[in-house]
This record gives sequence, C-alpha cells and structure tokens, in this order.
Amino acid sequence: MTTLITLAPGADPGPAARALKALGLWVTPLSDGPQRGFSVDPPSPPVALDLIRGVPGVAAVLQSGPIHPKVDGQAGRAVPFGPRPAGPALGAAPLLIAGPCSVESLATAHAAAATAAAHGATLLRGGAYKPRSSPYSFQGHGAPALGWLREAADAHGLGVVTEVLSEDGVAPVAHAADVLQIGSRNMQNFALLKAAGRAGKPVLLKRAMAATVEEWLLAGEYLLDAGAAGVVFCERGVKGFDASTRNLLDLGAVALLAHSLGQPVIVDPSHATGRRDLIVPLAAAALAAGAVGVMVEFHPDPGGALSDGPQALDDAGLAAVAAAVRACAGDAP
Amino acid sequence: MTTLITLAPGADPGPAARALKALGLWVTPLSDGPQRGFSVDPPSPPVALDLIRGVPGVAAVLQSGPIHPKVDGQAGRAVPFGPRPAGPALGAAPLLIAGPCSVESLATAHAAAATAAAHGATLLRGGAYKPRSSPYSFQGHGAPALGWLREAADAHGLGVVTEVLSEDGVAPVAHAADVLQIGSRNMQNFALLKAAGRAGKPVLLKRAMAATVEEWLLAGEYLLDAGAAGVVFCERGVKGFDASTRNLLDLGAVALLAHSLGQPVIVDPSHATGRRDLIVPLAAAALAAGAVGVMVEFHPDPGGALSDGPQALDDAGLAAVAAAVRACAGDAP
Amino acid sequence: MTTLITLAPGADPGPAARALKALGLWVTPLSDGPQRGFSVDPPSPPVALDLIRGVPGVAAVLQSGPIHPKVDGQAGRAVPFGPRPAGPALGAAPLLIAGPCSVESLATAHAAAATAAAHGATLLRGGAYKPRSSPYSFQGHGAPALGWLREAADAHGLGVVTEVLSEDGVAPVAHAADVLQIGSRNMQNFALLKAAGRAGKPVLLKRAMAATVEEWLLAGEYLLDAGAAGVVFCERGVKGFDASTRNLLDLGAVALLAHSLGQPVIVDPSHATGRRDLIVPLAAAALAAGAVGVMVEFHPDPGGALSDGPQALDDAGLAAVAAAVRACAGDAP
Amino acid sequence: MTTLITLAPGADPGPAARALKALGLWVTPLSDGPQRGFSVDPPSPPVALDLIRGVPGVAAVLQSGPIHPKVDGQAGRAVPFGPRPAGPALGAAPLLIAGPCSVESLATAHAAAATAAAHGATLLRGGAYKPRSSPYSFQGHGAPALGWLREAADAHGLGVVTEVLSEDGVAPVAHAADVLQIGSRNMQNFALLKAAGRAGKPVLLKRAMAATVEEWLLAGEYLLDAGAAGVVFCERGVKGFDASTRNLLDLGAVALLAHSLGQPVIVDPSHATGRRDLIVPLAAAALAAGAVGVMVEFHPDPGGALSDGPQALDDAGLAAVAAAVRACAGDAP
Repeated sequence: MTTLITLAPGADPGPAARALKALGLWVTPLSDGPQRGFSVDPPSPPVALDLIRGVPGVAAVLQSGPIHPKVDGQAGRAVPFGPRPAGPALGAAPLLIAGPCSVESLATAHAAAATAAAHGATLLRGGAYKPRSSPYSFQGHGAPALGWLREAADAHGLGVVTEVLSEDGVAPVAHAADVLQIGSRNMQNFALLKAAGRAGKPVLLKRAMAATVEEWLLAGEYLLDAGAAGVVFCERGVKGFDASTRNLLDLGAVALLAHSLGQPVIVDPSHATGRRDLIVPLAAAALAAGAVGVMVEFHPDPGGALSDGPQALDDAGLAAVAAAVRACAGDAP
Repeated sequence: MTTLITLAPGADPGPAARALKALGLWVTPLSDGPQRGFSVDPPSPPVALDLIRGVPGVAAVLQSGPIHPKVDGQAGRAVPFGPRPAGPALGAAPLLIAGPCSVESLATAHAAAATAAAHGATLLRGGAYKPRSSPYSFQGHGAPALGWLREAADAHGLGVVTEVLSEDGVAPVAHAADVLQIGSRNMQNFALLKAAGRAGKPVLLKRAMAATVEEWLLAGEYLLDAGAAGVVFCERGVKGFDASTRNLLDLGAVALLAHSLGQPVIVDPSHATGRRDLIVPLAAAALAAGAVGVMVEFHPDPGGALSDGPQALDDAGLAAVAAAVRACAGDAP
Repeated sequence: MTTLITLAPGADPGPAARALKALGLWVTPLSDGPQRGFSVDPPSPPVALDLIRGVPGVAAVLQSGPIHPKVDGQAGRAVPFGPRPAGPALGAAPLLIAGPCSVESLATAHAAAATAAAHGATLLRGGAYKPRSSPYSFQGHGAPALGWLREAADAHGLGVVTEVLSEDGVAPVAHAADVLQIGSRNMQNFALLKAAGRAGKPVLLKRAMAATVEEWLLAGEYLLDAGAAGVVFCERGVKGFDASTRNLLDLGAVALLAHSLGQPVIVDPSHATGRRDLIVPLAAAALAAGAVGVMVEFHPDPGGALSDGPQALDDAGLAAVAAAVRACAGDAP
Repeated sequence: MTTLITLAPGADPGPAARALKALGLWVTPLSDGPQRGFSVDPPSPPVALDLIRGVPGVAAVLQSGPIHPKVDGQAGRAVPFGPRPAGPALGAAPLLIAGPCSVESLATAHAAAATAAAHGATLLRGGAYKPRSSPYSFQGHGAPALGWLREAADAHGLGVVTEVLSEDGVAPVAHAADVLQIGSRNMQNFALLKAAGRAGKPVLLKRAMAATVEEWLLAGEYLLDAGAAGVVFCERGVKGFDASTRNLLDLGAVALLAHSLGQPVIVDPSHATGRRDLIVPLAAAALAAGAVGVMVEFHPDPGGALSDGPQALDDAGLAAVAAAVRACAGDAP
C-alpha cells in the first residue's frame, strides 16, 4: 500500500515527523512551495489510518486501494488445510508435513506414511510429478504415485499434499490430494493458478525464487479468485548469492506474513538449506518467527533416493524435527 | 573448502555415489576415459575425511587447505565478549545487547543503561560515530559520547560495545569500550580491520551487505591475525530485492556459523527488518537458529531519536525482546 | 561443466598453476598427501581439453558430461526465427522485433505493423495473452488478438512472435505465430515447455527473474528435446536490489551466450529498464555485447496503452532504436 | 527523489493518469475520500516539474529536496581526470585506463606504461596497496610501487590512477597519483572518503557490491563535500547469483548515470566478468551504454601475475580492447 500525507497550511512539519516516526513510520518530507507533506516509505509497517490522521497538522492521508482483497479476507482466520486447519493463534501445535521428495513405490509410501504419522505429521508430502531443471532427470512416477500416496496416507490417518505441475494434471491431483501444492517455479504460472484454484481445494503456495511478498500475495489472490478453499503460503528460500546454503531462507518475510498480515505460512527448511545438518535449527527458527508449521523431506535411505537425497532426513533426523515442533507447541500458553 | 574425489580403477561409481549422498554430500560424477571421480558441490556440509575415505571405491580425497585457521581455532570455544563470554553450548542464557542507535547525551545514556540492565542486558550499545549514507546526516556526537557510554555502563554494571569507523578512532574507542564493533560497510575495510585487531580487544564483526560466509570469516581472520582477543560475528541482514523489510535476514548463515562451524554469532533484528513490529519474533527465531544473543536498538522516545527512530523499540518493546531471550534460556536443558 | 585436474606424482604444482592461469583458468590447489591437483573454479571460461592436458605435469582432466546436448548442438548455427534466421556471425544486420505490449485492436495492430516494418523490423511482437501479477489487471484480448496480429503482420511482410501462457494455448498461438514466446515467469514451467516444444516452431525463451545461465540453457533443452525448431534466448533483466531501473540487465550473460557458447540471444531493453529514456543506449549496448537483435515495446499513444505505457516508446523513440540497430549493422555513414 | 501529485477537487483521475504515463511516469492512484492524487513510483525517470504541473487536473507536485547537491552540480560538465577530463558529450574519444592488477616492479611498470601508451591509454592503473579477501594473500608492494608507477607513467606521458586503502595512505597516494581510486569495499568507508576528498584530487569511485545508485551518488557527495576536484563513477559489477561471471555488470546503472544524470562513468569489464574472453564485447557495450571510458587489467605474462592473472589481458587482448574503444570514437573505417 502506498501512503502519502499532506499537512494543513502552516503546520510545522517537525513535530509531525516526530509523531509519525513514533508510530514506526519511515517518512520523507515533501514540499511544493508552502504546501508540505510526507511520503511513507518502505519498510514502514501498516499503521491504522486513524492514528495517522490523529497526528497534529495532518490534513489528508492519501492511500492506494486494496490489491488482494480475497487474501486480505483470510487474514487472521483458520484456513482449510486437510485434516487440521492452518491459521494463527489457533492454540494448537504447529503442523508437521513430511515425506519423501518423490514417491518411489507403494511400499516406500506406506513406510513414509507410517513414520510421518508416528512423529505427529498431519499431512504426507511426496512428489508424483517432479519439476526438474533438466529434461533428462527423473520426472516422478506420475499417476500411479498419486494412488500410492493416497492409499498410504489413508492407512495412517494422514492427509495428502502433492505438487501439481500442469493444467491437465489438476484434476487427477485434486482427486488424490487434500491440498494442492504449487511449486516455486510455477508461482506466477497464472494459467496453472487459475486451474488449480478452480478445483476448490486448499493450496500450498510456494514462493518463487525472487518474488516480492506483494507478488506472492497476488499469486494467492489468483488462487482464491478462482475458487481455492484457502491459501497457505510456503517459504522455501529465495535465490541468494552464497552457495553455502542452497537458498536464502527469508524468515523476515515469514514474520511479516504471520505477524503483520495474519496469513498462514509454512516453512520448508529442506529446500531452503539443502543441508540436513541445518534443518532442525531452522525448523525451530521458522516456528519462532511465526510459521504455523514446517514441511520437511525424509527418506528411509537418503543415499538411495531418486532425487534430493543429500538433503533428505533419515528417520532419526525426522524425529529431531518432530521434537523441535513439539517443543514449540509447549511454548504456547 | 573444495573437495574432489577420485575412484580406484574399475570401481563402480553407482554405489559410491549413493554412499556419498547418504553422507549428505551433493556430488557430480566426473571422468577422464576410464578414470572416475566426483566433485563435492555446494551446499554440501563438512564431512569427516575418514568417512569419505571409507566409502568403497574411493581412492583419494583431494582437498584445499584451511584459509582462515585462526577463526577455525576459536570454533567451539568461548570467546571474550565483555562481561560474559560468547560461545556455543555454554549452558548459559543468551546474551542481550541493547541501547540507542546513537548516544545523544549523558542523561539519555544513563537512562538507556538503567533500562538495558533492568532487562538483563550485559552490553550497552550506542553509536558515538555513526556511518551515514549522506554526509549531511547526523554523524554522532563523537568523543564525548564515548565518555557518556562508559560512565553510564559502569554505573549499571554493563560492558560497552560501540562502532569504530576510522583507523584514528581505534585508540579512543578501544579505551572506552569492552568490545569494538565493525559495521557492515567496513567489513572489508582491511586497514580498519588490522588497526582494530591490533587493539587486542574482542570485536563484534557485522556482515557486509553482500558478503558470502567465506568473505565474512576471512574478515574475522584479519582481526584475529592482527591480535583481536576474539571475534563474534553479527548478522544484520543482507541486501534483498523486497523493500518490505529493510534487509533480508539470513538465519541460514546463522545456523551454518553456529551449528556447522562452531562460531559465536549475534543477530541484530533491528537493522534486519527496520520494523519494530517484527523484532520480537525474529529475535526468537535468531536464538532458535543458533545465535548466542541478540542486539537491538531501543530509545525512550523513538519519535525523538536522531537516527533510526522508526525501528527503535520503546521500553515496552525492549521488555518483550528480553522476555523472548529469557524464554529461550529456559529451553536449554 | 565441472573440471578436476590431477597432477602426475612428483610434478611441481607451481609451474602448472601458472600455465593454467595463463589459459584464463581460476584454479584452487588441492592435495591428498603427496597427490596433487587443482579444481577449476568459476568464472573460468571453457578451455579446450587438449590445452589443459598439454600443461606439463597434468596427469588427468576429469570432467562432467554434457547436460544440454541439444542446445550445445545449435551452437554457432543459424536458428530458424521467422522471416530471417537468428545466429552469430551471419554477416547480417541485427534483428529488430517491435510492437505493442498488448494487441488492443485490429486497427492498432495494423498501425503498429506498418510502423515496425517501416523501421526495418522482421517480427511483430504483441501480447494476446498477458501474464499480469494481479488477477484484476487487463489479461489481453486473447484469441481475437492472435488473428489481428497475424493479419497485420501479413499485410506488412512481417513475422509474428507472441507469448504462449498455457498448455491449451499452444495450438492457437502456434497457428497464428511464427515464433512462440515463453515469458520469464514460465521459464521453468516444464509442462508448458514440453507443450510448446512439441509445436515444432522456433521459440523465444525469456530468462526467469533469478535463473542462472545453466538453468536457462536447460529450459532451452526442454524445448529442443520436445521438438522445437530452435531456441533463441532473450535477456530482459534479472531481479535487482535497486528500483531505479525495473530490472537489472545482465549483458555479461549475453556476452557469455553469444561469445563463449555460440547461442543466439535477443535483448529486451524495455522490460530491463522500464524507462523509455534508457532504451536506446541499452539497445546499442546489447548489440555491442553480442546480441543478434533487440525487442522493444512501442505504442502510438503510450499514455493510452492498456499496459506498460510508461516504458513504451512512441514512434520517434522506435525510430531512434532502429537507427541504433542500423548503426551496429555497419550502415552508419 | 520522491514525488506526490495531488489533483484539484473534482478533477478526473483518468485523463491525468494517461497524461502522466505519456510522460513516462509509473503512477499509483491514491485517494482520501474525494481527494485524489498519485504517487510517482520507481523506475520513473526524472521529468521536468513544469510538465507535470501542466497536466490538466494537477493541483500540486510535492517533492523531496536534493540530497546530493554537489554531485548534481557536476552533471553535464567535464570533470578533471588526469591528462584528459572525463565528461559527457565532450566530442572526444573514450578514455582508456589500463595496467596490471598490482605493480610488481619498476621494470614491469615501465613495460606496462609503454604498452598502455602505445594503445592510446591516458591513465596507467596499477595497485600498490591491494585489498584482498584473505590476510595471507599478496597485499601489494606498497610505497615503492607508488614510485614505480609514477616514474613509468611520466616516462610515457600518462597519468596515474591507483587505489587508496587507508586514511594514512591518502597523502602518499595523492602525492604519486593524478587520480585516487576508492575500491568497491570502501565505497561506504566514510572516514576514507572524507580523507580522500580532502586531498583535492579527482577520485575514481567504484560502486560497492550491493550499492544502490543513490548510495553511490551519496558516496560521491562525501568526496566532493570534502574537497575532491571531481568524482568519476566506476561500475565493476554488483554481486550476482550466477558464478559463471565474477560479478553482474549493471550497464542499466551506467546508462542511468550517463544519460539521465549526466555523470561521468567508467566501466571495469575485467572485474565485472573475471573472464578475459568477455572483456572486449563488454567494453564495447559499456561505451555504447554511455560510459566515457573503460578500465582494464593487462599483464605481459598473465600466468605469472601475482593476483587476478586469469582475468588479465595479454598484449593482444589489450590491443583488441583499444580497437573497440577507437571504434566507438568514430575512428572505425
């Protein structure tokens, strides 16, 4: 939102500037001859209009209109998200979403579901269709894998979240899954957003590699406008300049979504770091920053995984994440 | 560290690749005719050489030498840091460093010290010399402010950390302060690093706007090589592409320094976000990620602050941060 | 490509390092006991294997295999691209692609085609389907606009390039256009890449906001692997940290594609800058860096454009770009 | 500059928005009840106030004041820069600055000066004091190297530009050099900027790794405010996310400085790419974008260079750059 403030004729800008700074606003003084005003600059937080209008000397507060009203409309509310809704201040334990990078067989899906359930997960994740940088990399087992996921999840009382990669894939994925996942590379694939939204299910919307928070929210608006039952945002790291972690996890954006915008946000520390040894502390950090849950990759045999093995947790690693999740649950009053 | 692996003649690369992935390594297969090997690629974690050598088929593991041996030497150890050392696994409460952006008078320094001490801080922060983008902005009160800081800190049992901006300023700052701070803009001001190191005091080394972890560690090496008593790293956000937060807080780097490298790291959520409403959750997240403490700006009258008022906490805000710090202390066994 | 060099037993690494640096390679010395070697690090250029093998002391040069063989296969060759192929060293004038951001009517399409043709363009651009950050922004006139584009282009001897946004849209777009455009937001929409490639037409592939050159080439590989007649890469600026230009134009990547990899690359200075006053110098710079052509937006009435008006050139602006293109062709007096 | 436009009561925002877009401005409509206005958003170009005021319906145009008046004051003017001034539209050939990364001996300085002069350079570059990421890397030969540079330059009618790394080093460097260079890592080392400015010489100011154009201009303001005879800006690439080039050369910023702000700007393609094979096309691109000259590293024996050998041009490479520079001057056949 863009905000500009004009002052009444003759008003002293000094005290007004101090009062605006006291509200947490970064302001730049503007003038046109005797007429005075301020721009409100990033990274200012949202401040109630009445508080700004109440500052002595302020004549008018010109603002832009809402640009993602449907996303704004789910602020502070519980959003459908499979077995348990996602939302701020629900007084419930954080959500754990776990599973393999790709679903490799019915047997491994069952094993993964059993382990995930045993550690308190509510949703089983796993890729049937995998977005891969190279056309020659393993692309997922496709439709059969959707069936394996569903069967395994049902056997252990879990919901299913899995990625939809194409418009044609929306129907089968929506048939098998409780929650559709839109991956980072498709965050601004607007044709897919519209198709996925029309399925009427909740969507887990990953942030694109270099998306601003505003672009991310607008992608959510596409989904809700098309009919999605709810949007849960998923931060998985943006593109950074230091290869020592796979991506650059932006927990500032997580805090912003959770605490300033009231949106449900999940963090994926597996893709954020690409390093199994850093997943537990970053899962804990994500929950402390305001995430309603975490999503992690695990594999009973990380060395044998068909994709992303180096970042997959083994069962002991998943247990450590689950313990971190439970520890956060205990912090709530 | 760069690592390359060669395989014994005739060894099957398949099982070797699986075993290396199981160790968490991202590897690329290489060959020169029948000769086979792997590069170990980012974001691989450090893995003990013996484990790699133990993989069947591995003939040799070629590695680069250590490039910051003195920083490596303080890994896992307590580093002098004023009243209380900084270090991993010390079984102690996280450190709280607090104070105004700039030291504006003796009276406000006393007030800040009293408040900081009341909330459990060990170090009083405050700028005597301020790095400002514009030559026409307030540059700090200079030498007198050093005296005010020292007197106020002494009166309340606190140590002092304050920024040194110039080689000539090292002596007076080192005289007044327990810990010298090197700001982001000077992280690779090598003349200053050498001069500051020669003072023989501990140094709080802020990360530059776009520094890799390796560049940051090497800056620490300059300090230790010149004689610094210890280096504590301070993450304050890197330059991002989204203005909705002032910078992009990189808690992945914090987890990396803390958990993988054993280095003491402090987080400054005030500069990371520029938003008072996000400081508490990000302070908690920082500690969860592995930071040994947090550094925050507060001001009894944020609207009247001479610099950075919009991001300054008031006393109630500082109390909330202090509570978050204490809550983390209670999580330790 | 990853490269590891091993040295013969007893070989002196010093002279070998010097010889490798003389070849332009950035190398890091490695060792495992008496065994010595080097990694070849970014940003090293490709160097012929024989030259490296010829360095005294080098025992073996282990390399990774090709990952985008079909893209490599079009290196240095002319690629079909509508009326005139795109390629390096064709001894021909640079290509000019011009048109409105969106196709607003048959009449404006005719006017745009007439102007584009008069200035030497070979391809008429214009959006029938527009990717917009907001679902409430103008999304293009769709199928009718495809017909207007085709009719207008035919009337003036131009080819058509237009964006395809969805799998279902591939057939109608391929029917109307000579060249399919994949936009930045869809560069890693792999379902769309496969569908677009299957149409068998040439594709203009825009780089994603934060794609590495390798990721961009691999997206091209998807297209060629699916059957595209050729891929022309289009740089339009990556996401930057300074809002003073809309994006950060990466002409280093353009030079790399053109001069090191032999790939045809087009530059879009309109989206790169978002500023009409900078388009002419950056178009000239793009051609100097090695681009085979430029693509620009123009509108007879920029203020009345339904999208991107502020960055649209008027007719005089287009004339200036065309003059810059001709100057590069050696047509300058 | 921040700009807010207010509309007269009852004015229709539609036509006003169109007229503002026609001026190249990106605007956002704002309102406070019946009161209407627009913010002018990045990446809008500067537009004359009278043109905005002339838009029907506009009541007032509130703007922020100038923040770097001394830099603004050198806009469009020739700036002292050693033997030949730097400036836009001087009708002269572009400037060539060339020399080794570090000055290794008097003999090599003489050889470098002879070669540089033979190729039309006006300034000899070379490091006496080298900023190195590691304290254990070669740091330059220091004071003696300053003498070698001066003697060699004088013998061939060249000026000298060399980097100053510390406040104490300003006097000796200013004694030996015609132009002081401030490196990227010191762009916001304000103590050094003040000291360097006080020397009263022209300064070549490299852009920091992640500096916005505004921060860069403000660093120039520090220099001019302290007494520098002039500031020539030097773009050398910002930190990017793709290691295939050493940095990300921002020629959009170059075009902005040259064409929109009227400032003299030099480009360093050596550090921008780190790749000798890309220096010639990027030097040509830099000049096409509006740079008044280029600065390149060359070494008679790149393999034997004490630093940055892989990116150093040999004599033939320098000749190619010089030819590109002459071609831009209109000397091409």
